[in-house]
Amino acid sequence: MSVPRRARLALKRITVIGTGLIGTSIALAMRQAGAEVLLIDRDPAAARLAAELGAGAPWSGESADVAVLAVPPSAVARTLLDAQERGLAAAYTDVASVKVPPLDEAARLGCDLRIFVGGHPLGGSERSGPLAARPGLFDGRPWVLCPAGVADRAAVESVTELVTGCGATPVVMDAAGHDRAMALVSHAPHVVSAAMAARFADAPEGMVGLAGQGARDVTRIAGGAPSLWQEILAANARPVADVIEAVSDDLARAAAALRAHAGREPPVTDLLARGVTGHGRIPVKRGGSAGRLTTVTVLVADRPGELALILQAAGVAGINIEDISIEHLQGRPVGVVELSVAPDSAPHLIAELRTRGWSLPVPPER
Amino acid sequence: MSVPRRARLALKRITVIGTGLIGTSIALAMRQAGAEVLLIDRDPAAARLAAELGAGAPWSGESADVAVLAVPPSAVARTLLDAQERGLAAAYTDVASVKVPPLDEAARLGCDLRIFVGGHPLGGSERSGPLAARPGLFDGRPWVLCPAGVADRAAVESVTELVTGCGATPVVMDAAGHDRAMALVSHAPHVVSAAMAARFADAPEGMVGLAGQGARDVTRIAGGAPSLWQEILAANARPVADVIEAVSDDLARAAAALRAHAGREPPVTDLLARGVTGHGRIPVKRGGSAGRLTTVTVLVADRPGELALILQAAGVAGINIEDISIEHLQGRPVGVVELSVAPDSAPHLIAELRTRGWSLPVPPER
Repeated sequence: MSVPRRARLALKRITVIGTGLIGTSIALAMRQAGAEVLLIDRDPAAARLAAELGAGAPWSGESADVAVLAVPPSAVARTLLDAQERGLAAAYTDVASVKVPPLDEAARLGCDLRIFVGGHPLGGSERSGPLAARPGLFDGRPWVLCPAGVADRAAVESVTELVTGCGATPVVMDAAGHDRAMALVSHAPHVVSAAMAARFADAPEGMVGLAGQGARDVTRIAGGAPSLWQEILAANARPVADVIEAVSDDLARAAAALRAHAGREPPVTDLLARGVTGHGRIPVKRGGSAGRLTTVTVLVADRPGELALILQAAGVAGINIEDISIEHLQGRPVGVVELSVAPDSAPHLIAELRTRGWSLPVPPER
Repeated sequence: MSVPRRARLALKRITVIGTGLIGTSIALAMRQAGAEVLLIDRDPAAARLAAELGAGAPWSGESADVAVLAVPPSAVARTLLDAQERGLAAAYTDVASVKVPPLDEAARLGCDLRIFVGGHPLGGSERSGPLAARPGLFDGRPWVLCPAGVADRAAVESVTELVTGCGATPVVMDAAGHDRAMALVSHAPHVVSAAMAARFADAPEGMVGLAGQGARDVTRIAGGAPSLWQEILAANARPVADVIEAVSDDLARAAAALRAHAGREPPVTDLLARGVTGHGRIPVKRGGSAGRLTTVTVLVADRPGELALILQAAGVAGINIEDISIEHLQGRPVGVVELSVAPDSAPHLIAELRTRGWSLPVPPER
């Protein structure tokens, strides 16, 4: 039940500037890894709250091995300049989701870029605030590092140790490559999701009410805070524009093909095929190591403890449930539970559940 | 553990033509509701397989109250004509995901539209084939019915009873309104998802490898079978073109705004805001009855039975888990489990889990 132990740290002390979700999670992870952590926030109450959550102690003048600038992208360069002027640490990193603009601004402001290694921990939570922080937030996730050409080897080593100390996997890229990658995998999908969701803003209630899981999935990230995304998009404007322009062009071509469609060759064949290819290249949740899973469907009563009985049966049978999806049925006291298991385990699980009285009407999909 | 009983059926006998996922699920549901079900498929082996799954008996000349044409959209009108010429049933319905083209074609072919009531059960599975069928597939879901102006009252009543007998909620719309609604909530989202996913088809591996949950969600439906979607899009070409053209225009405008961005006003503010509004209008999984849920996060060992212990603890405490998400961590024997519960239940659940030795480092998000 405990988090695996990590290698002993050479980093003795880090300072986290900005105690939001990311900053506090880094602080918690580094405390767990054995480092001393000092906390700074422009709101002293926020730093005290993080300290109360066990993330470290409020900073009071100490010098650290690494200072983490967990501030919004637009504040990185000024915060770095200020921190370097105060001699806060031997090396500095940030966590901004864009890397070129802060680096450019830091160069303009005259920051010492030999001891700054930009960073970006990926795949955190969509929540925000220190209360959502947890030390395992970065466990097993990629964390991009963008050392500039002038970066000192010692600074790169210290920041890399911070990353591995947080349980993340360092991925080295140049800043421009990082920003193009984020435009593709994160920023453009957000705008595309918003553009689809925007179609629902003025549609008749009776139409929107028919939306199902597909529409929900495509538009889920469009629910994110506009203020945060405005800043991200503004900071990575050109690379994002490149991607969404290409998407826009593909959609315009698809619309034209559909309007011209007269019942012969099916339209948009190529776009759908490219979509299948692209979808297949996106890494699955588990990092690609797991094979295809089989789904076993069970109908259960929608009451406390019911699900536990099913999972207990699976546990007794030695079957590991890789994923669960629960669907509640409108106005009915039953739910559909889909259990994802390794294909080898499915027949065993089905037999076990049937033995214990659950009805699984038909064999699962292969 | 049993499915709630339904009102007694006036329908005595139905015939299902086409024993794929939808047809077989309807057959299973109507059998469960007490009707006699007869099965027809152009592949006799498929009809026999469905019969072996408990879906009914192969048809051998009987006349039914309702015949369900569970065939692809392009085959509906010809199948209807053929069935009516053979006098298969007193009333007919289909399950095609577009309603105008089959209706137009049926009128052209001279079908008797007084006894045909087009239907479309929504929100089924993404799987296909009779092996994925289950009687609860339609439980609590909307099922659109599009009776034409000439439809007999008796036919409408019979088909409505089929829908409620399957546990679904009938929603009456005209055929054109249905097709525009489907373009908005299903067909256009598919094309938009494909257009985003297509960007991943040729991108460098190192970039695609950074994709996370957001990109996965936006592109999930793009993985659907192109052949099926080609037919759907071709059949609903104009309404789909209207929606994706609007999305394309919004994206082109957003790209232009991003290119013109010079650091003053943030770009794409309006699109993001409309996206948030539209996203908020999409019904949540549970049909809008559930309030906001609170998430409780627990770190668990990735081994059989672990999850059961947590859910057992919740069950003992009388707490109903509304949703579960499991995230496996790359290369680590632990997983993050997020339990969604009613906000009132969260403190109780946290206390219960802590008492039993699980560590929940920080309070959950509110």
